[in-house]
Amino acid sequence: MKCVKCRNKASVELRRHNSAFCPPHFIEFFHRQVSRNIKRLNMFNADDNLLLAVSGGKDSLALWDFLLDAGYSVTALHIQLGIGNYSLRSADLTRNFATDRQARLIEFDLERELGVGVPKLSRILNRPACSACGLNKRYFFNKIAQDNGFTVVATGHNLDDEAATLLGNVLRWEKDALSRQSPVLERTHPGLVKKVKPLFSLTELETASYCLTKRIAYIEEECPNAKGAHSLLYKDILNQIESRSPGSKQQFFQGFLDRLRPLFLNRESVTLQECVSCGQPTTNTVCSFCRVRERARTAIDSSYTKRDGSIRQATREPQP
Amino acid sequence: MKCVKCRNKASVELRRHNSAFCPPHFIEFFHRQVSRNIKRLNMFNADDNLLLAVSGGKDSLALWDFLLDAGYSVTALHIQLGIGNYSLRSADLTRNFATDRQARLIEFDLERELGVGVPKLSRILNRPACSACGLNKRYFFNKIAQDNGFTVVATGHNLDDEAATLLGNVLRWEKDALSRQSPVLERTHPGLVKKVKPLFSLTELETASYCLTKRIAYIEEECPNAKGAHSLLYKDILNQIESRSPGSKQQFFQGFLDRLRPLFLNRESVTLQECVSCGQPTTNTVCSFCRVRERARTAIDSSYTKRDGSIRQATREPQP
Repeated sequence: MKCVKCRNKASVELRRHNSAFCPPHFIEFFHRQVSRNIKRLNMFNADDNLLLAVSGGKDSLALWDFLLDAGYSVTALHIQLGIGNYSLRSADLTRNFATDRQARLIEFDLERELGVGVPKLSRILNRPACSACGLNKRYFFNKIAQDNGFTVVATGHNLDDEAATLLGNVLRWEKDALSRQSPVLERTHPGLVKKVKPLFSLTELETASYCLTKRIAYIEEECPNAKGAHSLLYKDILNQIESRSPGSKQQFFQGFLDRLRPLFLNRESVTLQECVSCGQPTTNTVCSFCRVRERARTAIDSSYTKRDGSIRQATREPQP
Repeated sequence: MKCVKCRNKASVELRRHNSAFCPPHFIEFFHRQVSRNIKRLNMFNADDNLLLAVSGGKDSLALWDFLLDAGYSVTALHIQLGIGNYSLRSADLTRNFATDRQARLIEFDLERELGVGVPKLSRILNRPACSACGLNKRYFFNKIAQDNGFTVVATGHNLDDEAATLLGNVLRWEKDALSRQSPVLERTHPGLVKKVKPLFSLTELETASYCLTKRIAYIEEECPNAKGAHSLLYKDILNQIESRSPGSKQQFFQGFLDRLRPLFLNRESVTLQECVSCGQPTTNTVCSFCRVRERARTAIDSSYTKRDGSIRQATREPQP
């Protein structure tokens, strides 16, 4: 297998592009794809002050690396989720990257903020861990960006993430979620910071190959809370389709953006107001995050009245 | 496992309905579902003269059985596709059912009409067999109904068929195909007969259980031409999702009908004219069927000039 650019030995084969690349030409391909996404969709430019959400996984570290190489003004935000050793290792890998590249990193401890980490929060809310985790991350990405003068929040969502989310939304025809699914969410309210996903056209395999090629150490294991998550089933299913028809994932997600999403636009939009508790934008009087924080506090307070200090009695096991 | 109606031993479990039924109550359930579909969607009534497309498979035989039991005026149409022993056995099972139930049956021989059966036609057209087959069936269902005064054409498409077709259309966001996908296609042109799919809410497992319960012999093997068809992959994928979340197929297809399809309606519709060759409605000057028949004739004619009588030299192998 030879590189389509220089005919040297290829290290990465991309069936969906009917291509193969040697290490330097793969990096060039990756950079070109990400640059094109940023420019074509007007995600941001050299004047923007970017906050990049970094988990310690392959996607966010690859994007951080690209943004630094490309000279953008970027600060990473790592949220410690309190998921045992998984969170500790993720934080270490994120810090190591920041040190190696002398890059700016903000660390935020969710467990300190709420009094519980994601696993306990999931039990308190009787809600799947991924849902509880997502709600908190979205809240703090926006709030920390807003409070610190960042103009854009970037996340490392790749094509597999976006196509799997789309499949889930399509299987239930969640029109609200479909209307919001986009690589760019503009700042539609003074309290919302613009959100972008520059890797939306690159697969998991491609971001992993990027890290491997550039020797970026990332956390390779799946989050232990994701076990049994629907998103993993959807990713597996899309891989079955991709393996039969290379390019299917891209066709599915890009086709949605080009042909279906326009049907949802210009429809009545939701009205946002300020949360009476924290001031962040919400469709309700009190935002979802503040309600979650209140439930966490109540559960913690009631657990202090029990002898064993456990909060299990106050909550139920999460549903599968 | 007990019948939810009478507490006798159940023979069919329907996880998606959280139900189980004994044989008589399963038949009652099945009949009620089909009757409800016919009435809710105004598919047809006692005054209609129905033409039912019968392949000899479980779905069309179950529907034929229901329509006879319910007292509708129905005539079956079986198209012999020229797919070797598979077609011969399908025709036998269809004839046996007609004899047992003293039901009206029209037989039509595609091979005699075109000079070739589906397998050779697929090679001549260099087109997947399922696509060549579908085009011919749609043409003759409509033409034979039109020529013989039938007011409605019914087919046995079940929920698995419809959900798999929908998944294929959604993966490529085929807007034209999506706008046409419906359990009822009204007579929008004098040359088109109304088309209905009364089994669209019942699964393959349910139509097979119906035939088993009523001792209806049907052809159990897949059509040999369908091997490797995308529709089989999509059915398998939807079964994986259904097994994790019973009811997903129904939610996917019914949600599409309720929430997505309305977005496509009231959009510009296509203009139909009469095919200059056969008079059937088409968007072109000559309809797809007449173009196919012409290519078949040319291929057959050119094969007579070859010594071995083979038509392979005039054509290419079908693509996978």
